[in-house]
Amino acid sequence: MSPFPPPGDKAALEEGRALTPRFGPDGLVTCVTLDADTGEVLMVAHMNAPALARTLETGEVWYWSRSRQELWRKGATSGQVQSLVEMRVDCDQDALLIRVRVGGDGGCCHTGRRSCFYRAVAVGPDGPRLVPAAP
Amino acid sequence: MSPFPPPGDKAALEEGRALTPRFGPDGLVTCVTLDADTGEVLMVAHMNAPALARTLETGEVWYWSRSRQELWRKGATSGQVQSLVEMRVDCDQDALLIRVRVGGDGGCCHTGRRSCFYRAVAVGPDGPRLVPAAP
Repeated sequence: MSPFPPPGDKAALEEGRALTPRFGPDGLVTCVTLDADTGEVLMVAHMNAPALARTLETGEVWYWSRSRQELWRKGATSGQVQSLVEMRVDCDQDALLIRVRVGGDGGCCHTGRRSCFYRAVAVGPDGPRLVPAAP
Repeated sequence: MSPFPPPGDKAALEEGRALTPRFGPDGLVTCVTLDADTGEVLMVAHMNAPALARTLETGEVWYWSRSRQELWRKGATSGQVQSLVEMRVDCDQDALLIRVRVGGDGGCCHTGRRSCFYRAVAVGPDGPRLVPAAP
């Protein structure tokens, strides 16, 4: 059972004081994670109700791993634990925006990069290609 | 038919030069939209293959509206057209990060705010509550 109240009407969702996440058919909301100090977008992941509840209870960030289908305490094995600095919710409460401080070596992406968004899309005559993103 | 090649193996996805978005079962990828000048997170929305293709072709941002189930040229009615400045893709190519310049009054959220993330989650003794986010 979700520890969060069910979503109310449009006015309650958009202007109310209750956190009533609109989890999708898969039970997930999207979470965008920023570095609290630099504002850099580190990653996009997902939370289900238990992951969100644990994050708010503990101040350490938990996600739901869609690939492993399990609750995922970010950094549990890598040491790149994310400490929650701020959480925001969007107008219709189906997306979260969090600011975090990252432990360990400060990285986030499983490829070893700091951010998962290390490639930009360049559009040329042969269509889009991926190129290294500007730092 | 998607105008994008099908995703390759893990190495191709993460280190390759081909844009091969991993659209979900609903045909969508998540798109995080930032103000190109301030870095502010404006919104989180979704693109299907046609929306992504039109965005890259035209330089104006198209999404897929899940609520209306239709292609959505952002700003078509409000004038808050988004001009694409940069697009990035994440490690496993299931999320996009775009930087845009916003036309019209520069806003983004249908509630009239500039950003959709206008509320923060405050955790108190009675559980989480939403409060106005710091500007």
